[in-house]
Amino acid sequence: MQIGMVGLGRMGANMTRRLMRGGQQCVVFDRSPRAVEALAAEGATGAVDVADLVDRLETPRALWLMIPAAVVDETIAELVPHLAAGDILIDGGNSYYVDDIRRSQELAAKGIHYVDVGTSGGVWGLERGYCMMIGGEAEVVKHLDPVFQRLAPGAGDIARTPGREGLQSTAEQGYLHCGPNGAGHFVKMVHNGIEYGLMAAYAEGLGILKQANIGKQTQEADAETTPLRNPEHYQYDLNLRDITELWRRGSVVSSWLLDLAATALAGDPELESFAGRVSDSGEGRWTIKAAIDEAVPVPVLSAALYARFASRGAGEYENKLLSAMRYQFGGHLEKAAAQHAG
Amino acid sequence: MQIGMVGLGRMGANMTRRLMRGGQQCVVFDRSPRAVEALAAEGATGAVDVADLVDRLETPRALWLMIPAAVVDETIAELVPHLAAGDILIDGGNSYYVDDIRRSQELAAKGIHYVDVGTSGGVWGLERGYCMMIGGEAEVVKHLDPVFQRLAPGAGDIARTPGREGLQSTAEQGYLHCGPNGAGHFVKMVHNGIEYGLMAAYAEGLGILKQANIGKQTQEADAETTPLRNPEHYQYDLNLRDITELWRRGSVVSSWLLDLAATALAGDPELESFAGRVSDSGEGRWTIKAAIDEAVPVPVLSAALYARFASRGAGEYENKLLSAMRYQFGGHLEKAAAQHAG
Amino acid sequence: MQIGMVGLGRMGANMTRRLMRGGQQCVVFDRSPRAVEALAAEGATGAVDVADLVDRLETPRALWLMIPAAVVDETIAELVPHLAAGDILIDGGNSYYVDDIRRSQELAAKGIHYVDVGTSGGVWGLERGYCMMIGGEAEVVKHLDPVFQRLAPGAGDIARTPGREGLQSTAEQGYLHCGPNGAGHFVKMVHNGIEYGLMAAYAEGLGILKQANIGKQTQEADAETTPLRNPEHYQYDLNLRDITELWRRGSVVSSWLLDLAATALAGDPELESFAGRVSDSGEGRWTIKAAIDEAVPVPVLSAALYARFASRGAGEYENKLLSAMRYQFGGHLEKAAAQHAG
Amino acid sequence: MQIGMVGLGRMGANMTRRLMRGGQQCVVFDRSPRAVEALAAEGATGAVDVADLVDRLETPRALWLMIPAAVVDETIAELVPHLAAGDILIDGGNSYYVDDIRRSQELAAKGIHYVDVGTSGGVWGLERGYCMMIGGEAEVVKHLDPVFQRLAPGAGDIARTPGREGLQSTAEQGYLHCGPNGAGHFVKMVHNGIEYGLMAAYAEGLGILKQANIGKQTQEADAETTPLRNPEHYQYDLNLRDITELWRRGSVVSSWLLDLAATALAGDPELESFAGRVSDSGEGRWTIKAAIDEAVPVPVLSAALYARFASRGAGEYENKLLSAMRYQFGGHLEKAAAQHAG
Repeated sequence: MQIGMVGLGRMGANMTRRLMRGGQQCVVFDRSPRAVEALAAEGATGAVDVADLVDRLETPRALWLMIPAAVVDETIAELVPHLAAGDILIDGGNSYYVDDIRRSQELAAKGIHYVDVGTSGGVWGLERGYCMMIGGEAEVVKHLDPVFQRLAPGAGDIARTPGREGLQSTAEQGYLHCGPNGAGHFVKMVHNGIEYGLMAAYAEGLGILKQANIGKQTQEADAETTPLRNPEHYQYDLNLRDITELWRRGSVVSSWLLDLAATALAGDPELESFAGRVSDSGEGRWTIKAAIDEAVPVPVLSAALYARFASRGAGEYENKLLSAMRYQFGGHLEKAAAQHAG
Repeated sequence: MQIGMVGLGRMGANMTRRLMRGGQQCVVFDRSPRAVEALAAEGATGAVDVADLVDRLETPRALWLMIPAAVVDETIAELVPHLAAGDILIDGGNSYYVDDIRRSQELAAKGIHYVDVGTSGGVWGLERGYCMMIGGEAEVVKHLDPVFQRLAPGAGDIARTPGREGLQSTAEQGYLHCGPNGAGHFVKMVHNGIEYGLMAAYAEGLGILKQANIGKQTQEADAETTPLRNPEHYQYDLNLRDITELWRRGSVVSSWLLDLAATALAGDPELESFAGRVSDSGEGRWTIKAAIDEAVPVPVLSAALYARFASRGAGEYENKLLSAMRYQFGGHLEKAAAQHAG
Repeated sequence: MQIGMVGLGRMGANMTRRLMRGGQQCVVFDRSPRAVEALAAEGATGAVDVADLVDRLETPRALWLMIPAAVVDETIAELVPHLAAGDILIDGGNSYYVDDIRRSQELAAKGIHYVDVGTSGGVWGLERGYCMMIGGEAEVVKHLDPVFQRLAPGAGDIARTPGREGLQSTAEQGYLHCGPNGAGHFVKMVHNGIEYGLMAAYAEGLGILKQANIGKQTQEADAETTPLRNPEHYQYDLNLRDITELWRRGSVVSSWLLDLAATALAGDPELESFAGRVSDSGEGRWTIKAAIDEAVPVPVLSAALYARFASRGAGEYENKLLSAMRYQFGGHLEKAAAQHAG
Repeated sequence: MQIGMVGLGRMGANMTRRLMRGGQQCVVFDRSPRAVEALAAEGATGAVDVADLVDRLETPRALWLMIPAAVVDETIAELVPHLAAGDILIDGGNSYYVDDIRRSQELAAKGIHYVDVGTSGGVWGLERGYCMMIGGEAEVVKHLDPVFQRLAPGAGDIARTPGREGLQSTAEQGYLHCGPNGAGHFVKMVHNGIEYGLMAAYAEGLGILKQANIGKQTQEADAETTPLRNPEHYQYDLNLRDITELWRRGSVVSSWLLDLAATALAGDPELESFAGRVSDSGEGRWTIKAAIDEAVPVPVLSAALYARFASRGAGEYENKLLSAMRYQFGGHLEKAAAQHAG
């Protein structure tokens, strides 16, 4: 089986490379001819446009889209006229699963199969492999199994989970058919929602450690500042670079994200390369919306999302209103920024 | 009975005025002779120092401290040598109730009674009266009843609560003996904790209304920005000045804080006089600590407190760490502030 | 102008009554003939079906739907064949504003005007008046002004907001044209979101007051129970019935919801008539979804919503997983319910 | 150097075993003679009481307390009369760091050194090693280095963090001198606070996945139930046992806690052995208190703690009050539990 890869950005290019390393034939296309050439130089078959790409693939074709979620629909519209019944379209990007449901129904009417694949692994996937959450028809997913196997991390040297001895599942290889269309991106969506929560937990904890020397700082004494009752309890200058490293070994909070935090702090102990304006992608938001539809309480995941909103100044109006109300009932005047920065 | 008022700041001066309007004799002291003179000109007896103040009061004396929480202990230490068994010290400020418990025990050893009074009403109290939450020995509180009555709002024209016909309580006059020492400031502490929550609820809601025209704004299209799926759903330019006014009449969310929000927006519709750096006083923090000791879940009150912390930039390190982790796993670069301010 | 009222449940019937008290002619219909008869006995013109209702109204007709959100679309579908260009359909229920946008476009194609009205006031509206948030075309809303005026609370004896002297707006009468279609229900949606937050703030605060005697309770001493370090700080048996009453007078947290809490506690001090399974309606959920679309941080409103979910047992699976993980890493066994209920 | 181990519960016994495996001489004591005998049979020197224990140790002595936090003070009081200047007391349990500060000062007056060690690793530590966060005087900690080295996990096969090549720190061995007294337990406290947040993030995410088939469930249609607008979006029966396994390989959310979740689900896919009443120990609570003192926003860690409180029914009064208010303003009656359990 060949794979037609559409989109040769960082993710698409590296996935193609990993596929080729596994012996997979790849036909590739990207709007940038230079990107096509680069992969062609590494052994892929380059295509000059989508018609050419489709033309070069054996039927039934399998096309993997690795493109921004915003352009998936238009790309599908462009491809469809060239496709035949039995062909397979795989969306490996970050689509909203609700779009997967719609697309799979639209394509089914034309006999085209649709598979949604949520992919985790980021820039590390080329070497580590891509963890894949897959939604689609069982037979179609089965048909693509060799592709998934090549992209996935495999069992590696990660210890088998006790109690799974009798269980058969590709999960232990790092890919899984989660359910019908949309299930792949649904699981990936929640995966990212969890990711936000995990990241926020570390960030908050390290934030507390960072301020553990607040008792050494001179505090203003005015009606607008809560005095610290026990400054003698906050006299610690903690080395966060070493503490994150420490926790990587034997602690309950060890994780890959902690590894990354330790890496970041090793290179930039004061995080001076960052301003703290944290972006969020759609998955974190959709996760909360799904939770609300399901009436599942998700205070942690929500708080993590809102902290990102606030990091970009999104709470400014709210804060102004709080100050305005305080001024109304108590005559409290805001302290200037410089004063706060004690 | 006379009252000795110590501390003639905005609160102490106005409380003295309201007491005198009610026919209460007041002896007053403040570190600022000018403040003493001003009240003396309105009919109070001025004192030149604490010894003089104590001297001018009939026994058993009743001294009302209306001073910053941070100086209550030293002021008591200064007063005590001049006091006699049977005298009463009233702390009407914002002390931590834990200090009340300690002080009442220390003073009891000397035969001095201690009463803690949490006072709500702010700059409006002179005209509206002061809502008072009182902790102390029952007989002592009873002895001070005329004082509380003069300071309190009274029943006014606020409708009687259905079902309270047979109940006897000064609560309907706006003051209440809540329990033994500390109970007054404990109840006031939680009162302020609730206040934070209420304020945040309005602020968040108005924040949503304010952004209801986000669909009209041009949005950046890049991997770091979640696209708005339905801009046509966010085309409203809402008039928050009128909406807060509207809710004052007949809606479920009407409240005094809403009245204040409407006042603030009437005078400054865009809240341009505020930067959004919101102070917090001790009560909001102590409320959360008490809840944690009691194992009572308080997600709303906590979130309200943390929003104030964050409004002053306290989450910056956390946010930097989030960006640092995102950079590590996905190569995500932060967007510049100017880019975000779309 | 006449009003055709469709839906004579508690809300629709009382609104009809208030309209008739104001001199408004009303033609009424409900699936229950008994409900129609009851209102007819009070002076309304009864209709036997929707065709009859439409027939009895002068053109251009104004029909007010006061029915569950779930049946609005089918009711409109039933009505439309009988209506003529220029007629007005008013949805006074709790529709999702997104549906308003769609409906107004569908009806506009037929020349029928649509007005969405978010209504606050509940069972108290008949006497107090209904606070109304209105979305629709300016001329149509203007045309209905007499109807809104009759339903609204009016300025009443609520003090004018300082600074509004020169401002002209029906907001001071308790109704407001907020913007184009959907704006009425959008503002009402956020109003309810705020309501959830306010309610939760009171509930959490009272929860802390309720447990203020935890230091008197015998505590288990085992590795699964955090010992209370200072039981002497939690010795208060607080009277919540009196405290909520107290706060109604002169305090910063006074509000209509507090009035209701005081009423509830006056009649049932231990709240024994309630199990604590709190429902939520759509508005609270939609509020959060809108905030997420707008990237506005709403931690308080979200926490309030999730507390309701959790009150109905929705977090059970999450909690089981936490216990399962604790068991895995520490061998911690869950304590039985009876043990916890110390 | 010898170590005197006081407390031979699960943790103390296993730590003794790991020390002895590393060639460390251990003298052991426990209130249970049977526990002493067991360790003696494995090579430790047993002691019959604390005097005997102290007696059997060479000076300067090093005693490691591995006992419940609640009995540390009394145990120290019992030991001190037998100790000499220069001896070292190590608290390896879960003490509040504030107690460490006090104890170290009290003991310093007697010339006794105090070291606080926060220990992570739980029941897995015997094999994996114990991750240790250490507070105390630099020289004393240095003196104990061989002990920490034996207990710690060591670098093992965990990859070195990029960028740490030039850095010297025992952190890479899994133990770290964090700062003066209290620093060890401070860092451990925050470690556990983070742990709560991580666990909650997974729990909430899996909670969403679990309910992803809610669209298949029959929903009640009444005014107290929010209708699900798009049941077709929630038709997934997801296999959480496989999904947690899947994420262990190559995903951003892989962690040791996820490994444990996968283990738990492998053995009990429906988590039927748990009721969902989640205990919390002091560290999670103290973490929040420290954050509040430092004015650091910690919405995620707080939400995680409150979810545990609520899991044990602690929010019941709050919920009753919400229902009571809803009844007052809208006549809303609570739905029975059976009805909710749709």
